[in-house]
Amino acid sequence: MRLSQMLFVTLREDPAEAEIPSHKLLLRAGYIRRVGSGIYAYLPLMWRVLQKVSQIVREEMNATGAQECLLPQLQPADLWRESGRWDTYTKAEGIMFALVDRQQRELGLGPTHEEVITAIARDMIRSYRQLPQTLYQIQTKFRDEIRPRFGLMRGREFIMKDAYSFDADEAAMKLTYEKMNQAYHNILRRCGLKFRAVDADSGAIGGSGSQEFMVLAEAGEDEILYTDDGNYAANVEKAVSLPPDSEPSSFTVYEKRETPGTETIEKVCKFLKCSPTQLVKNVLYQAVYDSGITVLVLIHIRGDQDVNEVKLQNELVKLAGDYGAQTVLSLTVPDAEAQQKWASKPLPLGYMSPGISDDYIRSAKEIAPKFVRLVDRTVTDLQNFVTGADQSGYHFVGANWGTQFQKSDRVVDLRKAKAGDRAIHDPSQILQTARGIEIGHIFQLGTKYSKALGATYTNEQGEEMPLVMGCYGIGVSRLAQSAVEQSYDKDGIIFPVAIAPYQAIVIIPNVGDADQVAAAETLYGELNQAGVETLLDDRNERAGVKFKDADLIGIPYRIVTGKSLKDGKVEVVKRATKVVQELAIADVIPALKQWIAEALG
Amino acid sequence: MRLSQMLFVTLREDPAEAEIPSHKLLLRAGYIRRVGSGIYAYLPLMWRVLQKVSQIVREEMNATGAQECLLPQLQPADLWRESGRWDTYTKAEGIMFALVDRQQRELGLGPTHEEVITAIARDMIRSYRQLPQTLYQIQTKFRDEIRPRFGLMRGREFIMKDAYSFDADEAAMKLTYEKMNQAYHNILRRCGLKFRAVDADSGAIGGSGSQEFMVLAEAGEDEILYTDDGNYAANVEKAVSLPPDSEPSSFTVYEKRETPGTETIEKVCKFLKCSPTQLVKNVLYQAVYDSGITVLVLIHIRGDQDVNEVKLQNELVKLAGDYGAQTVLSLTVPDAEAQQKWASKPLPLGYMSPGISDDYIRSAKEIAPKFVRLVDRTVTDLQNFVTGADQSGYHFVGANWGTQFQKSDRVVDLRKAKAGDRAIHDPSQILQTARGIEIGHIFQLGTKYSKALGATYTNEQGEEMPLVMGCYGIGVSRLAQSAVEQSYDKDGIIFPVAIAPYQAIVIIPNVGDADQVAAAETLYGELNQAGVETLLDDRNERAGVKFKDADLIGIPYRIVTGKSLKDGKVEVVKRATKVVQELAIADVIPALKQWIAEALG
Repeated sequence: MRLSQMLFVTLREDPAEAEIPSHKLLLRAGYIRRVGSGIYAYLPLMWRVLQKVSQIVREEMNATGAQECLLPQLQPADLWRESGRWDTYTKAEGIMFALVDRQQRELGLGPTHEEVITAIARDMIRSYRQLPQTLYQIQTKFRDEIRPRFGLMRGREFIMKDAYSFDADEAAMKLTYEKMNQAYHNILRRCGLKFRAVDADSGAIGGSGSQEFMVLAEAGEDEILYTDDGNYAANVEKAVSLPPDSEPSSFTVYEKRETPGTETIEKVCKFLKCSPTQLVKNVLYQAVYDSGITVLVLIHIRGDQDVNEVKLQNELVKLAGDYGAQTVLSLTVPDAEAQQKWASKPLPLGYMSPGISDDYIRSAKEIAPKFVRLVDRTVTDLQNFVTGADQSGYHFVGANWGTQFQKSDRVVDLRKAKAGDRAIHDPSQILQTARGIEIGHIFQLGTKYSKALGATYTNEQGEEMPLVMGCYGIGVSRLAQSAVEQSYDKDGIIFPVAIAPYQAIVIIPNVGDADQVAAAETLYGELNQAGVETLLDDRNERAGVKFKDADLIGIPYRIVTGKSLKDGKVEVVKRATKVVQELAIADVIPALKQWIAEALG
Repeated sequence: MRLSQMLFVTLREDPAEAEIPSHKLLLRAGYIRRVGSGIYAYLPLMWRVLQKVSQIVREEMNATGAQECLLPQLQPADLWRESGRWDTYTKAEGIMFALVDRQQRELGLGPTHEEVITAIARDMIRSYRQLPQTLYQIQTKFRDEIRPRFGLMRGREFIMKDAYSFDADEAAMKLTYEKMNQAYHNILRRCGLKFRAVDADSGAIGGSGSQEFMVLAEAGEDEILYTDDGNYAANVEKAVSLPPDSEPSSFTVYEKRETPGTETIEKVCKFLKCSPTQLVKNVLYQAVYDSGITVLVLIHIRGDQDVNEVKLQNELVKLAGDYGAQTVLSLTVPDAEAQQKWASKPLPLGYMSPGISDDYIRSAKEIAPKFVRLVDRTVTDLQNFVTGADQSGYHFVGANWGTQFQKSDRVVDLRKAKAGDRAIHDPSQILQTARGIEIGHIFQLGTKYSKALGATYTNEQGEEMPLVMGCYGIGVSRLAQSAVEQSYDKDGIIFPVAIAPYQAIVIIPNVGDADQVAAAETLYGELNQAGVETLLDDRNERAGVKFKDADLIGIPYRIVTGKSLKDGKVEVVKRATKVVQELAIADVIPALKQWIAEALG
């Protein structure tokens, strides 16, 4: 392609709308253009990047035996009612755009396709002889994000590859899942990205296990915890670890102490000269279920630990059935106004005891919130601990479970793992932290959707069984931007060779110089002929402008038909390293072909 | 691909939902699956067909210098308000799905992209030096059809290629348009379709000239009129022709005659012993503009001719400015109830005169409908004609314009051309009729959108000028189905080689026969190796089932490793002709490669 004929406009200034480097660079370099909040046009350069990523994804999917298809973006509400997700997705979490057609029938714009594919499997799969099956598609998806931002990172319209597998049983599904896991590693490696696969929370999709694929970058929205031995990595939302050992308590006698002005852990520990590991912290949450029921949650957790709200949410979703609900709509630390609705007297915030319920939430029954206590594992073995005394300015010391306080039998893991913790698989390994951009997520779904929609098959014994499913997503447009976020410098983008829109750019410094033009035209033609995807900058612009633009758009190899032409040579510059070489014209194509082959591994 | 591993299910019975052969066949052969009204899943076989069509489209677009991009499907309402189409598309015609996001901002789901691309051009194109530019995309589009039907033919979600060109002036735009016209011919020829390019009405898209590309098929929704010399073809909506000559009138004296029971043209002509070509027919329409104003339209047209409502609509849209409107929302022959709203006494239907307005629509002014008279060209030269006398059971004979009736000065072409008419370019050519499926439409848009959105460039003289646009659509999914509609037999689909999902299928009649399996596996591997896209039917099914399925899905070449194996031969069957040949195994690949090369031209 000739730049003189391309719709190619670069910007000198960073656009005001952009916050992170990759977003700024993609706008400035003319890859994307904002059309509305979280809505972008992919311009010709970007489209080539997206096609390259898609093609790598396609090849790796096909290699697993998965079959490409294309499912509708408009999805009938009835299908989502069968799975029970219509209200959650359109009202509660509200991330699905909903609309009505001219017959007033409700439709959703697909953010994901479990319902549609399960309905198709229900129709088409009858026998174990048809299994396994994996279908995938590469498609624009929609999410009505609360806060669209960072360009393609969190857009309202984005390109996804989503795959869905159907197996006869759990074991077969895990084999398929493992194949996909391998394919995802291959995809990211081939795209030239530094990444990490991490244990992840399964969220609203559901299922028993999931892994996220994180492209490592400072601007990543996710925190990853990992060990240097390579045997553990998890999203902080999901991460587990060994907490530090608790120090033995020096309080051997149970008594109430006056501890004025100690509403924080730090203050009470300083006042009582004890370790936070000897303390039971009592934290209150208010959860609203989709059935309309509000539940108060009191959590006991060790003084030096924090609550991981994703883990808390998951525990509360497990209890949803008790409240005639399917999910938790909101989870908040109740503020003073919320407390007034159910507390009969002001709560002794900062001084609550594990027994708080009896004294303070008397009026709760009148407005019917439920009350649940959850015990984090970190406090179950504490002895002679310190905790609040349900009275402002007082703590108990030397308290014990079973003696002064009844321990709830809901003992669960709610603590937030953090960098510096010891790893469970090997306590000599210490958790490290990194930031990442989630570009893939694979799920062991199990039978959640097949049971809900009645997608069954007949096994060898003639029994009707639910299909066992997995689902596997990659954010294609997000991956493309994350490559930029991971690889740029002050002059612009440094695209990995595998997904750069073009592999090389031939620059004519002066289009008035017939020799330069002739040499460049010949090289441009021959490079493309040789399969090297090449741009020609034949614009009537100053050389400096052309060099700047080439750096900005991040084409891996730049060839300049400049002064050394008189020696039969051209200048060849590698974008990533800025290393400049003078090559004889005849050597250019072999050199580029070799470099590209090496880069593509 | 092995059929044993593919999600491949064929149906024996025609699905009840399908009306036309191609729809039935695509459902039965497992290409598509209905998910909702006008909403289909493209299963793996269909996806391959769509990819092949897309690739041909892409190659031909790229050959014109057009650049591929991808524009958003969600479109901000404000952009459509700038062009003035928001209300027309979401309310009046209502073919655009509209929704609101969580901030209650209005969005439309793109049925077309003139607004988005013009906004991008407005941002990016500043100078004549950047021109010409053509951008295109291949994308799922949405239309809230009143009556979705015929599968992919009139779906609510469908795949389109749409291209938009920007030129400096009308002459340059016409050159681009001509390139696109040629590219469209190439695309349809390469897809293996019988088609015709026809003059077309530009409808809601607008602009000065347009052509449709019609795939010829009995089930086509459109009627085409054409001449055998190849010099004229048009959609009947747009077609023009010479009407038959009118016979001279035998009525030389103007008088009112009693003509009882002659409310039809046929009856009055029989009663008065005159030709319909001597008669002025007066037809009443009621048009509602988008400004809310209702207009009564009285048309004078020759007795043997009919009104073309598309032409009428276009004439009325030209008058929209007079009524503070942009378009006509509805055009109906007013029924008795509608007439009562404005007629002061019952209209003498069947006996109206060209002067009807004065006597019958007295009360019109009170309810403020406007009144317009349009004169079709067929009546302007009539002399001594017959027409109604505004009284039931009476006609005037020997009437003349300028004497008994004032001719309106709005003389326009409103008549419906029909098969049998003489062609304008050569009256010796007689219009023929055929039915077609519209799969492409190219428009000379001009400056309609660039002026509305302020998309200008600076010309060589430093003047700011509006960009001159063209737009060019192909229904990719509709094209794929139209190929089936054009080419099938009682056993199933006969796909053109260029867009068949696979080019060949190797069938093992008996998977229990090790020789058959070995020969088939070898051929299957070697064919794919040689670049022949080949399926292997290795299912444990009866041979008859496999032959039926192969015919149904319409793979061009079938290879059967059957009885003739003992002679070192296999059976090769061409799907289109059912011609069976026994070929030595070594000859199979060369033969197929040659046949495919011939078919791809």
